Amino acid sequence: MTAKTLVNSKLVCVALNDKAQLAALEGTFNEAPYKKPPTQPVLYYKPRNTWSTEGAVVEWAKDFDGNDVAEMAVGASLGVVIGKETCRVSAEEALDYVGGYTIVADYSLPEQSYYRPDIKGKCLDTSAPVGPEIVAADKVATPEALTVTISVNGEQKSVFELANMERSVAELISIISRIMTLQPGEIIAVGFAGDRVAVNKGDKVEASIEGVGTLNNTLGGA
Amino acid sequence: MTAKTLVNSKLVCVALNDKAQLAALEGTFNEAPYKKPPTQPVLYYKPRNTWSTEGAVVEWAKDFDGNDVAEMAVGASLGVVIGKETCRVSAEEALDYVGGYTIVADYSLPEQSYYRPDIKGKCLDTSAPVGPEIVAADKVATPEALTVTISVNGEQKSVFELANMERSVAELISIISRIMTLQPGEIIAVGFAGDRVAVNKGDKVEASIEGVGTLNNTLGGA
Repeated sequence: MTAKTLVNSKLVCVALNDKAQLAALEGTFNEAPYKKPPTQPVLYYKPRNTWSTEGAVVEWAKDFDGNDVAEMAVGASLGVVIGKETCRVSAEEALDYVGGYTIVADYSLPEQSYYRPDIKGKCLDTSAPVGPEIVAADKVATPEALTVTISVNGEQKSVFELANMERSVAELISIISRIMTLQPGEIIAVGFAGDRVAVNKGDKVEASIEGVGTLNNTLGGA
Repeated sequence: MTAKTLVNSKLVCVALNDKAQLAALEGTFNEAPYKKPPTQPVLYYKPRNTWSTEGAVVEWAKDFDGNDVAEMAVGASLGVVIGKETCRVSAEEALDYVGGYTIVADYSLPEQSYYRPDIKGKCLDTSAPVGPEIVAADKVATPEALTVTISVNGEQKSVFELANMERSVAELISIISRIMTLQPGEIIAVGFAGDRVAVNKGDKVEASIEGVGTLNNTLGGA
Protein backbone atom coordinates (compact mmCIF):
# COMPACT_ATOMS: atom_id res chain seq x y z
CA MET A 1 0.00 0.00 0.00
CA THR A 2 1.21 3.47 -0.89
CA ALA A 3 1.23 6.15 1.80
CA LYS A 4 -0.81 9.22 1.03
CA THR A 5 1.05 12.41 0.21
CA LEU A 6 0.77 15.22 2.75
CA VAL A 7 0.44 17.76 -0.07
CA ASN A 8 -2.96 19.10 -1.01
CA SER A 9 -3.18 20.47 -4.54
CA LYS A 10 0.10 22.38 -4.83
CA LEU A 11 3.77 22.25 -3.88
CA VAL A 12 5.61 25.49 -4.69
CA CYS A 13 9.37 25.69 -4.21
CA VAL A 14 11.49 28.80 -3.82
CA ALA A 15 14.82 28.76 -5.64
CA LEU A 16 17.82 30.99 -4.96
CA ASN A 17 16.86 31.79 -1.37
CA ASP A 18 20.28 31.03 0.13
CA LYS A 19 22.24 34.24 0.71
CA ALA A 20 25.57 32.48 0.15
CA GLN A 21 24.35 31.10 -3.19
CA LEU A 22 23.15 34.52 -4.30
CA ALA A 23 26.52 36.03 -3.43
CA ALA A 24 28.33 33.31 -5.37
CA LEU A 25 26.13 33.90 -8.44
CA GLU A 26 26.55 37.66 -8.44
CA GLY A 27 28.89 37.66 -11.43
CA THR A 28 26.56 35.45 -13.45
CA PHE A 29 23.56 37.60 -12.61
CA ASN A 30 25.29 40.63 -14.07
CA GLU A 31 25.77 38.98 -17.46
CA ALA A 32 23.23 39.01 -20.31
CA PRO A 33 20.31 38.72 -20.55
CA TYR A 34 19.33 40.04 -17.09
CA LYS A 35 22.36 42.11 -16.09
CA LYS A 36 21.11 42.18 -12.50
CA PRO A 37 20.12 39.73 -9.76
CA PRO A 38 16.48 38.59 -9.61
CA THR A 39 14.33 41.18 -7.90
CA GLN A 40 11.55 38.74 -7.00
CA PRO A 41 11.53 35.20 -5.59
CA VAL A 42 12.21 32.58 -8.26
CA LEU A 43 9.57 29.87 -7.94
CA TYR A 44 9.11 26.42 -9.37
CA TYR A 45 6.52 23.68 -8.99
CA LYS A 46 6.82 20.08 -8.07
CA PRO A 47 3.68 18.61 -9.70
CA ARG A 48 1.62 15.69 -8.47
CA ASN A 49 3.69 12.98 -10.15
CA THR A 50 6.62 14.07 -7.97
CA TRP A 51 4.86 13.84 -4.60
CA SER A 52 6.09 11.10 -2.33
CA THR A 53 6.26 10.24 1.35
CA GLU A 54 8.37 9.35 4.38
CA GLY A 55 10.04 6.01 3.82
CA ALA A 56 9.41 5.88 0.08
CA VAL A 57 11.91 4.80 -2.53
CA VAL A 58 12.76 7.68 -4.86
CA GLU A 59 13.07 6.39 -8.41
CA TRP A 60 16.44 6.74 -10.08
CA ALA A 61 15.84 8.97 -13.09
CA LYS A 62 16.07 7.78 -16.67
CA ASP A 63 17.13 9.71 -19.73
CA PHE A 64 15.12 10.17 -22.92
CA ASP A 65 16.01 6.68 -24.12
CA GLY A 66 15.16 5.01 -20.83
CA ASN A 67 18.72 4.55 -19.58
CA ASP A 68 19.66 5.47 -16.03
CA VAL A 69 21.02 9.00 -15.69
CA ALA A 70 24.59 9.40 -14.41
CA GLU A 71 23.90 11.83 -11.58
CA MET A 72 21.15 12.97 -9.25
CA ALA A 73 21.15 15.52 -6.44
CA VAL A 74 19.01 16.28 -3.40
CA GLY A 75 18.10 19.40 -1.49
CA ALA A 76 15.85 19.78 1.54
CA SER A 77 13.66 22.60 2.76
CA LEU A 78 11.31 23.51 5.53
CA GLY A 79 7.81 22.98 4.15
CA VAL A 80 5.27 25.60 5.15
CA VAL A 81 1.75 24.16 5.14
CA ILE A 82 -0.95 26.71 4.46
CA GLY A 83 -3.75 26.62 7.07
CA LYS A 84 -6.44 28.77 5.47
CA GLU A 85 -7.11 30.59 2.22
CA THR A 86 -4.30 33.09 1.76
CA CYS A 87 -4.69 35.96 -0.68
CA ARG A 88 -2.70 39.21 -0.58
CA VAL A 89 -1.67 39.07 3.04
CA SER A 90 0.97 41.32 4.52
CA ALA A 91 4.24 39.95 5.85
CA GLU A 92 3.15 41.02 9.33
CA GLU A 93 0.06 38.80 9.29
CA ALA A 94 1.46 36.04 7.05
CA LEU A 95 2.39 33.56 9.77
CA ASP A 96 -1.23 33.55 10.97
CA TYR A 97 -2.04 31.71 7.74
CA VAL A 98 0.38 28.86 8.42
CA GLY A 99 -1.26 25.62 9.54
CA GLY A 100 1.94 23.72 10.20
CA TYR A 101 5.42 22.79 9.14
CA THR A 102 6.98 19.76 7.52
CA ILE A 103 10.04 18.79 5.45
CA VAL A 104 10.25 18.76 1.66
CA ALA A 105 13.05 16.91 -0.10
CA ASP A 106 13.70 17.82 -3.72
CA TYR A 107 15.49 15.21 -5.81
CA SER A 108 16.51 16.37 -9.26
CA LEU A 109 18.96 16.13 -12.06
CA PRO A 110 22.01 18.32 -11.42
CA GLU A 111 21.20 21.91 -12.32
CA GLN A 112 22.86 22.98 -15.55
CA SER A 113 21.78 26.59 -15.65
CA TYR A 114 19.73 28.84 -13.47
CA TYR A 115 18.14 30.55 -16.47
CA ARG A 116 15.56 28.23 -17.88
CA PRO A 117 12.58 26.64 -16.11
CA ASP A 118 14.04 23.24 -15.54
CA ILE A 119 10.90 21.16 -15.85
CA LYS A 120 12.82 18.14 -17.04
CA GLY A 121 15.23 18.08 -14.11
CA LYS A 122 12.73 19.01 -11.42
CA CYS A 123 9.61 17.04 -12.27
CA LEU A 124 10.86 13.48 -11.95
CA ASP A 125 8.33 10.95 -10.71
CA THR A 126 8.51 10.45 -6.88
CA SER A 127 11.17 13.17 -6.55
CA ALA A 128 9.43 15.22 -3.84
CA PRO A 129 9.01 13.28 -0.60
CA VAL A 130 7.15 15.33 2.02
CA GLY A 131 6.94 14.47 5.71
CA PRO A 132 7.31 12.67 8.00
CA GLU A 133 4.31 14.56 9.41
CA ILE A 134 2.86 18.04 9.73
CA VAL A 135 3.83 19.73 12.98
CA ALA A 136 1.32 22.33 14.19
CA ALA A 137 2.35 25.92 13.55
CA ASP A 138 2.30 26.83 17.24
CA LYS A 139 5.12 24.36 17.90
CA VAL A 140 7.50 26.52 15.85
CA ALA A 141 7.96 30.03 17.24
CA THR A 142 10.45 31.35 14.67
CA PRO A 143 10.94 29.33 11.48
CA GLU A 144 14.14 31.24 10.71
CA ALA A 145 15.67 29.77 13.88
CA LEU A 146 15.54 26.27 12.35
CA THR A 147 18.38 24.39 10.65
CA VAL A 148 17.92 21.90 7.80
CA THR A 149 20.45 19.07 7.55
CA ILE A 150 20.93 16.33 4.99
CA SER A 151 22.76 13.10 5.73
CA VAL A 152 23.57 10.40 3.18
CA ASN A 153 24.24 6.88 4.47
CA GLY A 154 24.66 8.33 7.95
CA GLU A 155 27.16 11.02 7.00
CA GLN A 156 26.14 14.65 7.27
CA LYS A 157 26.48 16.39 3.88
CA SER A 158 24.63 19.69 4.19
CA VAL A 159 23.71 22.15 6.94
CA PHE A 160 21.51 25.13 6.10
CA GLU A 161 20.52 27.60 8.78
CA LEU A 162 17.28 29.28 7.77
CA ALA A 163 18.59 32.54 9.22
CA ASN A 164 20.64 32.60 6.01
CA MET A 165 17.59 32.76 3.77
CA GLU A 166 17.40 35.86 1.57
CA ARG A 167 13.67 36.16 2.29
CA SER A 168 11.87 35.04 5.44
CA VAL A 169 8.90 32.68 5.55
CA ALA A 170 6.56 35.60 6.25
CA GLU A 171 7.94 37.65 3.34
CA LEU A 172 7.58 34.69 0.96
CA ILE A 173 3.99 33.97 1.97
CA SER A 174 3.15 37.63 1.51
CA ILE A 175 4.74 37.85 -1.93
CA ILE A 176 3.43 34.52 -3.23
CA SER A 177 -0.08 35.29 -1.97
CA ARG A 178 -0.07 38.35 -4.25
CA ILE A 179 0.81 36.12 -7.23
CA MET A 180 -1.65 33.31 -6.56
CA THR A 181 -4.24 32.51 -3.92
CA LEU A 182 -3.06 29.69 -1.66
CA GLN A 183 -5.43 27.09 -0.22
CA PRO A 184 -5.28 24.97 2.95
CA GLY A 185 -2.85 22.08 2.62
CA GLU A 186 -0.81 23.67 -0.13
CA ILE A 187 2.87 23.67 0.73
CA ILE A 188 5.70 26.12 0.09
CA ALA A 189 9.26 24.82 0.26
CA VAL A 190 10.83 28.06 1.36
CA GLY A 191 14.51 27.58 0.69
CA PHE A 192 17.27 25.11 -0.09
CA ALA A 193 21.00 25.30 0.51
CA GLY A 194 22.59 26.54 -2.70
CA ASP A 195 24.79 23.48 -2.95
CA ARG A 196 22.71 20.41 -3.64
CA VAL A 197 24.03 17.07 -2.39
CA ALA A 198 25.05 14.43 -4.93
CA VAL A 199 23.42 11.04 -4.39
CA ASN A 200 23.91 7.55 -5.80
CA LYS A 201 21.70 4.55 -6.40
CA GLY A 202 20.73 2.84 -3.17
CA ASP A 203 21.73 5.75 -0.93
CA LYS A 204 19.79 6.29 2.29
CA VAL A 205 19.00 9.97 2.70
CA GLU A 206 17.85 11.71 5.89
CA ALA A 207 16.56 15.27 5.71
CA SER A 208 16.12 16.59 9.21
CA ILE A 209 14.90 19.68 11.07
CA GLU A 210 15.00 19.63 14.85
CA GLY A 211 11.48 20.06 16.17
CA VAL A 212 9.91 19.18 12.82
CA GLY A 213 11.23 15.68 12.20
CA THR A 214 13.35 13.50 9.97
CA LEU A 215 12.36 12.47 6.47
CA ASN A 216 13.94 9.18 5.37
CA ASN A 217 14.14 8.04 1.76
CA THR A 218 16.16 5.60 -0.27
CA LEU A 219 17.31 6.02 -3.85
CA GLY A 220 16.12 3.27 -6.13
CA GLY A 221 17.94 1.66 -9.02
CA ALA A 222 20.63 -0.08 -6.96
CA MET B 1 -22.58 27.60 -7.66
CA THR B 2 -19.18 27.25 -9.27
CA ALA B 3 -18.76 24.88 -12.20
CA LYS B 4 -16.21 22.12 -11.69
CA THR B 5 -12.97 22.33 -13.63
CA LEU B 6 -12.42 19.70 -16.32
CA VAL B 7 -8.77 19.36 -15.28
CA ASN B 8 -7.69 16.48 -13.10
CA SER B 9 -4.49 17.11 -11.17
CA LYS B 10 -2.31 18.82 -13.78
CA LEU B 11 -2.43 21.34 -16.64
CA VAL B 12 0.85 21.51 -18.56
CA CYS B 13 1.29 24.11 -21.29
CA VAL B 14 3.77 24.06 -24.13
CA ALA B 15 5.39 27.41 -24.95
CA LEU B 16 7.14 28.36 -28.18
CA ASN B 17 5.40 25.75 -30.33
CA ASP B 18 4.42 28.14 -33.13
CA LYS B 19 6.84 27.84 -36.06
CA ALA B 20 6.36 31.49 -37.01
CA GLN B 21 7.16 32.61 -33.46
CA LEU B 22 10.29 30.47 -33.37
CA ALA B 23 11.44 31.96 -36.67
CA ALA B 24 10.84 35.49 -35.35
CA LEU B 25 12.85 34.78 -32.19
CA GLU B 26 15.80 33.25 -34.01
CA GLY B 27 18.02 36.29 -33.48
CA THR B 28 17.20 36.41 -29.76
CA PHE B 29 17.87 32.71 -29.35
CA ASN B 30 21.37 33.16 -30.68
CA GLU B 31 22.26 35.74 -28.04
CA ALA B 32 23.65 34.96 -24.55
CA PRO B 33 23.10 32.95 -22.47
CA TYR B 34 21.84 30.15 -24.73
CA LYS B 35 23.30 31.03 -28.11
CA LYS B 36 20.95 28.54 -29.78
CA PRO B 37 17.22 27.86 -30.01
CA PRO B 38 15.68 25.55 -27.38
CA THR B 39 16.29 21.91 -28.27
CA GLN B 40 13.43 20.59 -26.13
CA PRO B 41 9.82 21.72 -25.61
CA VAL B 42 9.55 24.62 -23.17
CA LEU B 43 6.87 23.76 -20.64
CA TYR B 44 5.01 25.67 -17.97
CA TYR B 45 2.27 24.87 -15.50
CA LYS B 46 -1.04 26.45 -14.82
CA PRO B 47 -1.66 25.42 -11.18
CA ARG B 48 -4.98 24.73 -9.53
CA ASN B 49 -5.70 28.33 -8.57
CA THR B 50 -5.76 29.17 -12.28
CA TRP B 51 -8.30 26.54 -13.36
CA SER B 52 -11.62 27.89 -14.51
CA THR B 53 -14.54 26.92 -16.72
CA GLU B 54 -16.77 27.73 -19.67
CA GLY B 55 -18.71 30.88 -18.97
CA ALA B 56 -16.62 31.99 -16.01
CA VAL B 57 -15.44 35.52 -15.37
CA VAL B 58 -11.65 35.75 -15.52
CA GLU B 59 -10.40 38.07 -12.80
CA TRP B 60 -8.58 41.19 -13.89
CA ALA B 61 -5.07 40.87 -12.44
CA LYS B 62 -3.74 43.10 -9.70
CA ASP B 63 -0.19 44.24 -9.09
CA PHE B 64 1.81 43.78 -5.91
CA ASP B 65 0.02 46.65 -4.21
CA GLY B 66 -3.45 45.46 -5.21
CA ASN B 67 -4.01 47.91 -8.05
CA ASP B 68 -5.37 46.73 -11.39
CA VAL B 69 -2.63 45.93 -13.91
CA ALA B 70 -2.58 47.94 -17.13
CA GLU B 71 -2.55 45.07 -19.61
CA MET B 72 -3.54 41.44 -19.94
CA ALA B 73 -3.32 39.05 -22.87
CA VAL B 74 -4.94 35.79 -23.89
CA GLY B 75 -3.87 32.78 -25.90
CA ALA B 76 -5.81 29.61 -26.69
CA SER B 77 -4.74 26.04 -27.33
CA LEU B 78 -6.09 22.65 -28.11
CA GLY B 79 -6.21 20.79 -24.80
CA VAL B 80 -5.20 17.14 -25.00
CA VAL B 81 -6.85 15.14 -22.21
CA ILE B 82 -4.88 12.07 -21.15
CA GLY B 83 -6.99 8.90 -21.15
CA LYS B 84 -4.79 6.43 -19.30
CA GLU B 85 -1.47 6.36 -17.46
CA THR B 86 1.19 7.52 -19.91
CA CYS B 87 4.85 6.82 -19.20
CA ARG B 88 7.60 6.74 -21.84
CA VAL B 89 5.40 6.11 -24.85
CA SER B 90 6.63 6.43 -28.41
CA ALA B 91 5.26 9.07 -30.75
CA GLU B 92 3.75 6.28 -32.86
CA GLU B 93 1.60 5.00 -30.00
CA ALA B 94 1.07 8.34 -28.21
CA LEU B 95 -2.37 9.15 -29.60
CA ASP B 96 -3.68 5.86 -28.16
CA TYR B 97 -3.24 7.48 -24.73
CA VAL B 98 -5.48 10.44 -25.51
CA GLY B 99 -8.93 10.27 -23.92
CA GLY B 100 -10.29 13.41 -25.54
CA TYR B 101 -9.81 16.98 -26.59
CA THR B 102 -10.91 20.33 -25.23
CA ILE B 103 -9.89 23.99 -25.33
CA VAL B 104 -7.54 25.74 -22.90
CA ALA B 105 -7.44 29.52 -22.69
CA ASP B 106 -4.40 31.07 -21.05
CA TYR B 107 -4.83 34.58 -19.67
CA SER B 108 -1.65 36.21 -18.47
CA LEU B 109 0.29 39.37 -18.01
CA PRO B 110 2.04 40.38 -21.24
CA GLU B 111 5.24 38.39 -21.60
CA GLN B 112 8.32 40.49 -20.91
CA SER B 113 10.98 37.94 -21.68
CA TYR B 114 11.06 34.39 -22.78
CA TYR B 115 13.98 33.58 -20.50
CA ARG B 116 12.65 33.29 -17.01
CA PRO B 117 9.90 31.02 -15.70
CA ASP B 118 7.13 33.57 -15.59
CA ILE B 119 5.25 32.27 -12.56
CA LYS B 120 3.95 35.71 -11.72
CA GLY B 121 2.47 36.38 -15.14
CA LYS B 122 1.13 32.90 -15.78
CA CYS B 123 -0.35 31.81 -12.47
CA LEU B 124 -3.10 34.38 -11.99
CA ASP B 125 -6.20 33.14 -10.21
CA THR B 126 -8.92 31.96 -12.67
CA SER B 127 -6.62 32.54 -15.67
CA ALA B 128 -6.99 29.09 -17.25
CA PRO B 129 -10.55 28.37 -18.37
CA VAL B 130 -10.89 24.88 -19.82
CA GLY B 131 -13.87 23.62 -21.79
CA PRO B 132 -16.62 23.83 -22.81
CA GLU B 133 -16.49 20.02 -22.69
CA ILE B 134 -14.23 17.09 -23.45
CA VAL B 135 -14.78 15.66 -26.92
CA ALA B 136 -13.93 11.96 -27.26
CA ALA B 137 -10.60 11.28 -28.94
CA ASP B 138 -12.18 9.27 -31.76
CA LYS B 139 -14.06 12.38 -32.92
CA VAL B 140 -10.75 14.02 -33.91
CA ALA B 141 -8.85 12.09 -36.57
CA THR B 142 -5.86 14.43 -36.91
CA PRO B 143 -5.36 17.09 -34.26
CA GLU B 144 -2.91 18.96 -36.51
CA ALA B 145 -5.78 19.54 -38.96
CA LEU B 146 -7.54 21.77 -36.42
CA THR B 147 -7.50 25.57 -36.26
CA VAL B 148 -7.73 27.60 -33.05
CA THR B 149 -9.35 31.02 -33.28
CA ILE B 150 -9.81 33.78 -30.73
CA SER B 151 -12.48 36.45 -31.01
CA VAL B 152 -12.85 39.43 -28.70
CA ASN B 153 -16.25 41.12 -28.52
CA GLY B 154 -17.22 39.33 -31.71
CA GLU B 155 -14.18 40.34 -33.73
CA GLN B 156 -11.68 37.66 -34.77
CA LYS B 157 -8.22 38.48 -33.44
CA SER B 158 -6.16 35.32 -33.86
CA VAL B 159 -6.10 32.29 -36.13
CA PHE B 160 -3.63 29.49 -35.47
CA GLU B 161 -3.54 26.42 -37.67
CA LEU B 162 -2.13 23.53 -35.68
CA ALA B 163 -0.31 22.36 -38.81
CA ASN B 164 2.05 25.23 -37.94
CA MET B 165 3.08 23.73 -34.63
CA GLU B 166 6.79 22.98 -34.31
CA ARG B 167 6.00 19.67 -32.61
CA SER B 168 2.91 17.53 -33.15
CA VAL B 169 0.56 16.33 -30.43
CA ALA B 170 2.02 12.83 -30.65
CA GLU B 171 5.60 14.08 -30.39
CA LEU B 172 4.76 16.22 -27.37
CA ILE B 173 3.01 13.40 -25.53
CA SER B 174 5.98 11.14 -26.21
CA ILE B 175 8.53 13.69 -24.97
CA ILE B 176 6.56 14.84 -21.92
CA SER B 177 5.84 11.23 -20.92
CA ARG B 178 9.62 10.70 -20.64
CA ILE B 179 9.87 13.69 -18.29
CA MET B 180 6.90 12.88 -16.06
CA THR B 181 4.26 10.18 -15.90
CA LEU B 182 0.87 11.52 -16.97
CA GLN B 183 -2.40 10.38 -15.38
CA PRO B 184 -5.97 10.21 -16.74
CA GLY B 185 -7.62 13.61 -16.83
CA GLU B 186 -4.36 15.55 -16.90
CA ILE B 187 -4.32 18.04 -19.75
CA ILE B 188 -1.60 19.28 -22.09
CA ALA B 189 -2.17 22.61 -23.85
CA VAL B 190 -0.10 21.79 -26.90
CA GLY B 191 0.51 25.13 -28.53
CA PHE B 192 -0.48 28.78 -28.68
CA ALA B 193 -0.13 31.31 -31.46
CA GLY B 194 3.06 33.27 -30.82
CA ASP B 195 1.21 36.55 -30.75
CA ARG B 196 -1.05 36.73 -27.73
CA VAL B 197 -4.20 38.85 -28.01
CA ALA B 198 -4.50 41.96 -25.84
CA VAL B 199 -7.69 42.13 -23.79
CA ASN B 200 -9.43 44.79 -21.72
CA LYS B 201 -11.72 44.78 -18.72
CA GLY B 202 -15.19 43.53 -19.58
CA ASP B 203 -14.18 41.98 -22.90
CA LYS B 204 -16.04 38.89 -24.07
CA VAL B 205 -13.58 36.32 -25.38
CA GLU B 206 -14.40 33.28 -27.51
CA ALA B 207 -11.75 30.63 -28.06
CA SER B 208 -12.97 28.21 -30.69
CA ILE B 209 -11.92 25.00 -32.44
CA GLU B 210 -14.29 23.54 -35.03
CA GLY B 211 -15.32 20.08 -33.91
CA VAL B 212 -14.18 20.68 -30.34
CA GLY B 213 -16.27 23.65 -29.28
CA THR B 214 -16.26 27.26 -28.22
CA LEU B 215 -15.03 28.44 -24.84
CA ASN B 216 -16.63 31.69 -23.70
CA ASN B 217 -15.27 33.89 -20.95
CA THR B 218 -15.54 37.48 -19.82
CA LEU B 219 -12.84 39.62 -18.31
CA GLY B 220 -13.74 40.99 -14.90
CA GLY B 221 -12.93 44.35 -13.43
CA ALA B 222 -15.12 46.41 -15.75
